[in-house]
Amino acid sequence: MSGDTITAASAGAGLPVRVAAYQQRIETVLERVLALPDPGTARLREAMRYSVLGAGKRLRPTLVYLTGETLGAPAARLDAPAAAVELIHVYSLVHDDLPAMDDDDLRRGRPTCHRAFDEATAILVGDALQALAFAVLAEADGAGAGMQTDAATQLEMIRVLARATGTGGMAGGQAVDLAAVGQVLTVPAIEDMHRRKTGALIQCSVVLGALAAGVGSGPKLAALEQFGALIGLAFQIQDDILDVTGDPQVLGKQVGADAAHAKPTYPSTAGLAAAQERALQLRDAAIAALAPLGSNAAPLAGVARFVVQRVS
Amino acid sequence: MSGDTITAASAGAGLPVRVAAYQQRIETVLERVLALPDPGTARLREAMRYSVLGAGKRLRPTLVYLTGETLGAPAARLDAPAAAVELIHVYSLVHDDLPAMDDDDLRRGRPTCHRAFDEATAILVGDALQALAFAVLAEADGAGAGMQTDAATQLEMIRVLARATGTGGMAGGQAVDLAAVGQVLTVPAIEDMHRRKTGALIQCSVVLGALAAGVGSGPKLAALEQFGALIGLAFQIQDDILDVTGDPQVLGKQVGADAAHAKPTYPSTAGLAAAQERALQLRDAAIAALAPLGSNAAPLAGVARFVVQRVS
Repeated sequence: MSGDTITAASAGAGLPVRVAAYQQRIETVLERVLALPDPGTARLREAMRYSVLGAGKRLRPTLVYLTGETLGAPAARLDAPAAAVELIHVYSLVHDDLPAMDDDDLRRGRPTCHRAFDEATAILVGDALQALAFAVLAEADGAGAGMQTDAATQLEMIRVLARATGTGGMAGGQAVDLAAVGQVLTVPAIEDMHRRKTGALIQCSVVLGALAAGVGSGPKLAALEQFGALIGLAFQIQDDILDVTGDPQVLGKQVGADAAHAKPTYPSTAGLAAAQERALQLRDAAIAALAPLGSNAAPLAGVARFVVQRVS
Repeated sequence: MSGDTITAASAGAGLPVRVAAYQQRIETVLERVLALPDPGTARLREAMRYSVLGAGKRLRPTLVYLTGETLGAPAARLDAPAAAVELIHVYSLVHDDLPAMDDDDLRRGRPTCHRAFDEATAILVGDALQALAFAVLAEADGAGAGMQTDAATQLEMIRVLARATGTGGMAGGQAVDLAAVGQVLTVPAIEDMHRRKTGALIQCSVVLGALAAGVGSGPKLAALEQFGALIGLAFQIQDDILDVTGDPQVLGKQVGADAAHAKPTYPSTAGLAAAQERALQLRDAAIAALAPLGSNAAPLAGVARFVVQRVS
């Protein structure tokens, strides 16, 4: 499941090997992070492992690794932030799928956590994954890779992740999303919702890669922040598009869910053609934003292309 | 509501003024932390404020302040950890009250968050409060008090909080609690569950107070860790007792909930008299553990007495 989507065609020549290697690497790191030996909580840990391991595009960890690598960081220094963003992402999926939220039965081609286990366990899985994400970033040897950054950088990474996760980012975006059900939104309001709900954590992934590489300010960080914001918005617009045009077999989840939930989306607001055009425009702007990084940033440009060409 | 429980009778002469002052102080700090101006998420922020402000014993922040003060820390340095532990505590209450968990309608004398708002909002409130707790500890000026500790200490505080919150602490304890429904547990198994579910965060509050005061190792920290573990367990046993003997008007929540949910408790396992005896024994052991801190620790001994004498 894990290597099925970021491919040579979408991400540029030379990239697939590295992306596949990173996807394998994050799997090993997440395995290590979730190997919490504790007999009292076997079911909770099983549900955490079920939700996190063996599935997913791993887009956010891949962004941490590719950004860090572009700036010269060794992969071992990127393991902790790569794991942290994926743990936050999975916690948000588990909670979003709950009956009181989107009430989804399928995720990544498998029953959602609350369907495979139960609702109470799914609530705790999300809660525990969020705590684990911050633990991984805060531990001296975050992901067991034997390499970590200095305390000030770790702290800055935690700040960035906490902001992207809370009311100003993902959780706030989910609240906007809930409030939008049955409403007619303007295109700027849709984009604001998408920036929070999905964009903030994708941008955060890029920024964490830069911070772990020691790039905590300056034109390269500014360029990467802009790049992250642009692909984050493009990613969610493509998500909206795939909910209309996608193949449920390939997506691993139901399609038409947004319309069924009366959720306003970019296509429902501006039309499918305008959504596709906007996604391509954001892709081009994202690639242009990488200029200050020179030719090293080619793999990141590949991710921008993947984001709007993906079919799952 | 907030100053109604830790009183002179239970906490020792001279204490009430300081406890009341800290309870007022944490209210102001939490107000500041929750003053997140963001028009897009008004309902979420209203639900967060509803859940956090104006109610609760504030036991955990009081422990941060009293421990820090015992070790000579200025109160401004304790605001961030005091706010963080209370935010984590409230998030756990909001999620525990959900229909899929304990399905409670009343908390602190008011409708629970999902009753006053809705279930989806209550899930997001808990998620956002957890992120906010880590944000507050990680920000350079955590709770807006103009004073913060060094990066290494902040990082250690985040580690301690993340461990107390995740599978090894509170979330793990909730999972054990879920699994225990309808089971007959031994007394050691009940105590293990209580240590995780409730004890870990109470112990963490004491440890954060010590860390913020610059006490990160040595016999005083060891004494405080032991003290925190003992009062944490005593607190949950007293909670079990109050669910049998308490007055719902005074408690601000239903009684008999444990029996109704077929949850094994200390009284249901060992009998009410044995539970009361165990709570007093833990109180005495906790007070004895404070010996290395000398007479400065009298206010903490007062908290140990309060924990087992409280009626709400």
